Amino acid sequence: MPGFPAVETPGVLIDEDIVDRNIAAAQAQFDRLGVALRPHIKTHKLVRFARKQLGAGATGITCQKTSEAEVFVNAGCRDVLITFNILGAEKLARLRRLSEDATITVVADNEVVVRGLSQAFADAGTPLRVLVECDTGLARCGVQDPEAAVALARIIAGSPGLTFAGLMTYPAPNGHERVEDFMVAAKSGCLAAVGHCDVVSSGGTPSMKSFPGGSVVTEYRPGTYIYNDRSLVARGACTPADCAVGVAATVVSRPTPDRAVLDSGSKALSSDLLGLSGYGLLRDYPDAVINGLSEEHGHVDLSACARKPEVGERVLIIPNHVCVVTNLFDRVHLHRGGRFVETVQVDARGRVF
Amino acid sequence: MPGFPAVETPGVLIDEDIVDRNIAAAQAQFDRLGVALRPHIKTHKLVRFARKQLGAGATGITCQKTSEAEVFVNAGCRDVLITFNILGAEKLARLRRLSEDATITVVADNEVVVRGLSQAFADAGTPLRVLVECDTGLARCGVQDPEAAVALARIIAGSPGLTFAGLMTYPAPNGHERVEDFMVAAKSGCLAAVGHCDVVSSGGTPSMKSFPGGSVVTEYRPGTYIYNDRSLVARGACTPADCAVGVAATVVSRPTPDRAVLDSGSKALSSDLLGLSGYGLLRDYPDAVINGLSEEHGHVDLSACARKPEVGERVLIIPNHVCVVTNLFDRVHLHRGGRFVETVQVDARGRVF
Repeated sequence: MPGFPAVETPGVLIDEDIVDRNIAAAQAQFDRLGVALRPHIKTHKLVRFARKQLGAGATGITCQKTSEAEVFVNAGCRDVLITFNILGAEKLARLRRLSEDATITVVADNEVVVRGLSQAFADAGTPLRVLVECDTGLARCGVQDPEAAVALARIIAGSPGLTFAGLMTYPAPNGHERVEDFMVAAKSGCLAAVGHCDVVSSGGTPSMKSFPGGSVVTEYRPGTYIYNDRSLVARGACTPADCAVGVAATVVSRPTPDRAVLDSGSKALSSDLLGLSGYGLLRDYPDAVINGLSEEHGHVDLSACARKPEVGERVLIIPNHVCVVTNLFDRVHLHRGGRFVETVQVDARGRVF
Repeated sequence: MPGFPAVETPGVLIDEDIVDRNIAAAQAQFDRLGVALRPHIKTHKLVRFARKQLGAGATGITCQKTSEAEVFVNAGCRDVLITFNILGAEKLARLRRLSEDATITVVADNEVVVRGLSQAFADAGTPLRVLVECDTGLARCGVQDPEAAVALARIIAGSPGLTFAGLMTYPAPNGHERVEDFMVAAKSGCLAAVGHCDVVSSGGTPSMKSFPGGSVVTEYRPGTYIYNDRSLVARGACTPADCAVGVAATVVSRPTPDRAVLDSGSKALSSDLLGLSGYGLLRDYPDAVINGLSEEHGHVDLSACARKPEVGERVLIIPNHVCVVTNLFDRVHLHRGGRFVETVQVDARGRVF
């Protein structure tokens, strides 16, 4: 196993060689398919990596929150999709300001959101681009059927300050067939009702590798692919060698022969299980089980391990869900195959507004 | 139900009236018992609230990490216990610097930690105070029996730069009897072997109300009691009226009659369940169930609700585990019974080193 830089623990280590490979592979996949790539920055929240993604050929970026978009527009990103229903006077005012510096697209799945957007943009020089969010099986946000998508598209198209720009969905894992069925019907309805439906946007790293050719989808929004994590390895979406991020931790206690305690708990790893057993994988002790987390302690069961780490040893944890881990740290450490490169601020950490 | 300030959502709202009551009640309880109170700041991470706790009569504060202690010592706290095995050259150097400005006590449960501390403090003007951490049933860190505690106390007492200062434990919930048995034996052994054992430190909000009179314990370290949360209500440790913190959220979607989606997900509420069902309690919709979290969406099942919130409505969520929630936000909003007071920076947010 390669070594890793001796940073203070707990610390987030990101292998930029793997990041570069992951960016290039995804871009090549979607270039081959003739589908635009619009990476979601919620995973890395780093301007540096958004620039890499755009430099590789991404058509723009995706943000989940207005406050995230502010960070990236301020850093020069000029084409941003915010895949969230935006409500409230403060956020709408901030959205309006953002739209003066960049092409902003948002989504809506209900009339209340559309009315708010329209009021905020009624006197704007350029209308705001709005996609209709469609629920193609995930049961989160989204209109429930193609007819409802067409009805909302018509309302958007008739609202002052807004342009109907197309359709958006976040699919259930490997839900491509449902996406195709829903989106083909919704697009055809929108073309008939509104006369245009330029964008059909789908996304998600879990379903990325199985994304089909000849799809109605015009752009894809994966996020986690840039780093990958234990949950994606478990789903077969990547291999351990594709995981760019590890949390460096120190064994601070070996209270019994079969237990170790790490200096990394739920405030470093988060409690996300994503259906897995254990709170992360100890890369160099794959038989160890992180079977519990206190806020600042990781509880490790070593009973299945032939070799066991000693007090003071540094270990590397592949996190279950990398997107929530990097959001816990103000700074992360970049390296290339173990050679330290630079420590950088996580530009949009904590931007939940 | 009282209203709450119309902050941008998601936003953490803290009722300072409830904070003041919780601080006063705990201080009165331990004053009556003649036991020192040393609140753990990991819950609030706010200098403002540490000062309230010290002003009410706390003997000092508890931190979990060296980097947390730095924030509070820099703000003027002069008596800090760090309840963590501290390892590594950087942390030991920082600990040494801290000890120049404040009385610092740390814990150890093994010889490797004691050796590191001793090396770092061998030439210090004032020896470092070290407590032996004891496992009284929680199965996290700690020596496993009173004999091991005495043996480690002897090693500490014989180590250059260190003073053996007593014993420390974080008990299992309502594990007071185990604490008494273990600590009485360990203290008596330490008195015989080392000649002194001034501090016997226990802690934890879950067990606070049931803390017994006439205990061997000399100081108590509760953290969560200042805010309380849904998990403590569920354990009977407090009532909903004692919960000082709510996460204000907005309903952004009502995709079906029985579902709502909030603008608050695992990056605002964390995924901590602490044995509960659901990711928080909607204060004004107690029959609603937050049955899933995406990173920025809360998924709510409204099927049991007679009255249902509409798109655009603001709701207040009592979090399952408040300590990890405030650590996700750079700023929190203080109010008194709904009247906005001030927005403050979370001074030690993200200090996991």
